[in-house]
Amino acid sequence: MPNETLHTVHSYEQELEHLRLLVNKMGGLAERQVAQAIIAVVDHDEAAALDAPEMDPQVDELERETEALVIRLLALRAPMAGDLREVVAALKISGDLERIGDCAASIARRAMRSELLSCPISVTGLRSMGRLVQDNLRRTIDAMDQRDPELARIVWQSDTAVDELYTAMFRELVTYMMEDPRNIGPCTHLLFIAKNLERIGDHATNISERVYYAVTGHILPIVRPRGGTFD
Amino acid sequence: MPNETLHTVHSYEQELEHLRLLVNKMGGLAERQVAQAIIAVVDHDEAAALDAPEMDPQVDELERETEALVIRLLALRAPMAGDLREVVAALKISGDLERIGDCAASIARRAMRSELLSCPISVTGLRSMGRLVQDNLRRTIDAMDQRDPELARIVWQSDTAVDELYTAMFRELVTYMMEDPRNIGPCTHLLFIAKNLERIGDHATNISERVYYAVTGHILPIVRPRGGTFD
Repeated sequence: MPNETLHTVHSYEQELEHLRLLVNKMGGLAERQVAQAIIAVVDHDEAAALDAPEMDPQVDELERETEALVIRLLALRAPMAGDLREVVAALKISGDLERIGDCAASIARRAMRSELLSCPISVTGLRSMGRLVQDNLRRTIDAMDQRDPELARIVWQSDTAVDELYTAMFRELVTYMMEDPRNIGPCTHLLFIAKNLERIGDHATNISERVYYAVTGHILPIVRPRGGTFD
Repeated sequence: MPNETLHTVHSYEQELEHLRLLVNKMGGLAERQVAQAIIAVVDHDEAAALDAPEMDPQVDELERETEALVIRLLALRAPMAGDLREVVAALKISGDLERIGDCAASIARRAMRSELLSCPISVTGLRSMGRLVQDNLRRTIDAMDQRDPELARIVWQSDTAVDELYTAMFRELVTYMMEDPRNIGPCTHLLFIAKNLERIGDHATNISERVYYAVTGHILPIVRPRGGTFD
């Protein structure tokens, strides 16, 4: 009988570890999708542009696996307290990671549109925004992997800078469109690319909130500091 | 002892019923937010525009309540099979409903921007798109309340028409911008309003998928039929 208990505890830990592995793998893929999407836009790199959408089915599959494992863990293992919070967080985080992948795929698909390839508009703003979003996402995933609530809180706060860059880009792109109607086509796509980057930032803050709650049992303040006014 | 069991069973059912009530209430609020946001845009109605963002804190609070109850139910009641699927679905659905509210609030805030109030662009396309999205959302929430998988499947399929209207609107708005640079400001806002409507449609299809799975235990095909090509 003690052996059986030991066995159960052991495989419960294994299942929890497997859940962490799945979410971690999703995080890695989402990071790669975002990186490739940004390369696709700023360097007009076709191979990178194909990469992000191609990873989508794998991310979707991992999300389904995560959910199936969460349901299994809840049904058969009845995790408590911190474990329960972690399992529920995994479910929510996998949803955010999947949406980050969607945003990246959408950016990558737009990056290869003919209007953008022949576009004279400088993408400096996008480059800075992309760098910041990537950096926040990486640190969010680090906070998740290391279960570090302090890092999660710091990343959560730093999304303000992404919002500010987005607002600046929005204004800048509208100005380009006003200057020359030939800019309208590419700039509308750039607007949506910027919006998708901003949304990736938002999903990263959602993940940070989840990590903070899962580890500490406390929720971050309801209203996150926001930069800019466009939404 | 039998009394205690009865009592436990009774209050488990009560808690499950309370969970349904919470999600149902969120669904009602999300529907109202979307309705008011559409009125704000198509009728330039200021009172309606203020309504949708004002409801946001209430929706957020309901999402937190839902999550707290889900964790409580999972920890103390260990629901099984169909109940477990329903509890997990409630968690995911509340997330989609909260995001629908965010999209509606974003639409409402844009609706009152001065560029849009003085805008000569006809909003016929938005009106049709708004009607369709509202209709799909209402039927999704009906499917959820009545736990009707067939209705969920039908609504899930009908989002294709929303995608098609969105693509048509995108093209139309770009044309207006080309015609007259004074249209650029209002049209960029209209583009994002249309995008938010399309996203509300996407969240409604996510909810339909959840309802279908929670009730039947089967998942809908992975790739949903999509209309149009812009994303």
